[in-house]
Amino acid sequence: MLSKSQIKLITQLKQKKYRQLNGFFVVEGVKTINELLQSHFVLQTLYTTETFNIDAKKEVLISESDLKRISFLTTPNKALAIFKIPVPKPIIKNGLIVALDAVRDPGNLGTIIRLCDWFGIKDLVCNNETVDCFNPKVIQATMGSITRVNISYIDLVDFLKESSLPIYGAFMEGDNVYNKNNLSEGVLVMGNEANGISKEVEAIINEKISIPRFGDLRSTESLNVATATAILLSEFKRR
Amino acid sequence: MLSKSQIKLITQLKQKKYRQLNGFFVVEGVKTINELLQSHFVLQTLYTTETFNIDAKKEVLISESDLKRISFLTTPNKALAIFKIPVPKPIIKNGLIVALDAVRDPGNLGTIIRLCDWFGIKDLVCNNETVDCFNPKVIQATMGSITRVNISYIDLVDFLKESSLPIYGAFMEGDNVYNKNNLSEGVLVMGNEANGISKEVEAIINEKISIPRFGDLRSTESLNVATATAILLSEFKRR
Repeated sequence: MLSKSQIKLITQLKQKKYRQLNGFFVVEGVKTINELLQSHFVLQTLYTTETFNIDAKKEVLISESDLKRISFLTTPNKALAIFKIPVPKPIIKNGLIVALDAVRDPGNLGTIIRLCDWFGIKDLVCNNETVDCFNPKVIQATMGSITRVNISYIDLVDFLKESSLPIYGAFMEGDNVYNKNNLSEGVLVMGNEANGISKEVEAIINEKISIPRFGDLRSTESLNVATATAILLSEFKRR
Repeated sequence: MLSKSQIKLITQLKQKKYRQLNGFFVVEGVKTINELLQSHFVLQTLYTTETFNIDAKKEVLISESDLKRISFLTTPNKALAIFKIPVPKPIIKNGLIVALDAVRDPGNLGTIIRLCDWFGIKDLVCNNETVDCFNPKVIQATMGSITRVNISYIDLVDFLKESSLPIYGAFMEGDNVYNKNNLSEGVLVMGNEANGISKEVEAIINEKISIPRFGDLRSTESLNVATATAILLSEFKRR
């Protein structure tokens, strides 16, 4: 059985302000919940239609129809869990760091977190104009990789100014990334879906890099920020 | 003013069977509609809140509330157009061709079409288990690049058997793509989101290729098919 206060809390956790107020976020689906249970993330309460055989005090068995009431998905997947928002670890200021300047789309952020996990990027730093990584749509898109990437929301301009690493930024008009032979360490900055990297951040970039277009040059479309991140991380890591 | 039959047709065009029956598909948003108007795609009817200054017989001025009634989007963007589904051009059987084996997610197909456009891939071939490229969510994700990529739905097994090009397939356990120095021409096959490339297609693949994982090897997650396509197309094209 679900109490009114439980339903209220879960519903509120859709919104960033209530996540920050309560220090919790929501995860759905057996597979992703299991990934989080096996990580350093701390479970608060698990609402599930089938037992996970965990600490009974933290597990609430509910009906399919109750799950439907609390789920953020159109097709709920057996369980919904509330986890504590972890305190980010200190940023390791060497190797390759990915930095996001106002990436707004939850699907893009989720895909970028998954890419960081794949390419062994330990730290993802975001300014506060970037969508919250504990947004349910981001969590859904990360497929559990949020447990393996340290995500910090910081003042990006200050962070970059203080960094001793070379700072690369993805631009439409930058140097051809395929011709760069010295890529390994650094901060790779990716910008907003519509406007790219802001002027303030652009001023601190050391090297502007670009993925060359091979198709029809009349088209003005850019690559999506998540696919551009995929290609650039591949370029940093393959060498 | 919108007639009942107009509303009915537009609503039906959400479904593949009615798109095939009528030979039409729906495009929304001023920017994408303009890209299609400037291409070889043939407009049937444009429903818009502001004139596009085109052939008046093809333009129907409607109110915002009428647009809301017919739009597939939660936030309609000024105009909705019905275009004729074009007949695919013959496939050019040289260079690099991308082939999809049961890619189901409209967002993924849209992103892959956009990537083909960026990397100058002329032909994208799909089996019939792949989502329809005239699905409204696909069209929305392509950002107009559907006008520059020739998309054919074919029997993939027959197509590959008859191809004289080398056939590459993306697998979790393939040769490290970064170590391949002979990549340029070929058919690159990408598989289904959950199951990868089917057994039947796998049997015809000449070379299995893979993007190496640099992160935590305990995780079993794969890259998303669209981001994997981004990285592999970059590898084919950068050399």
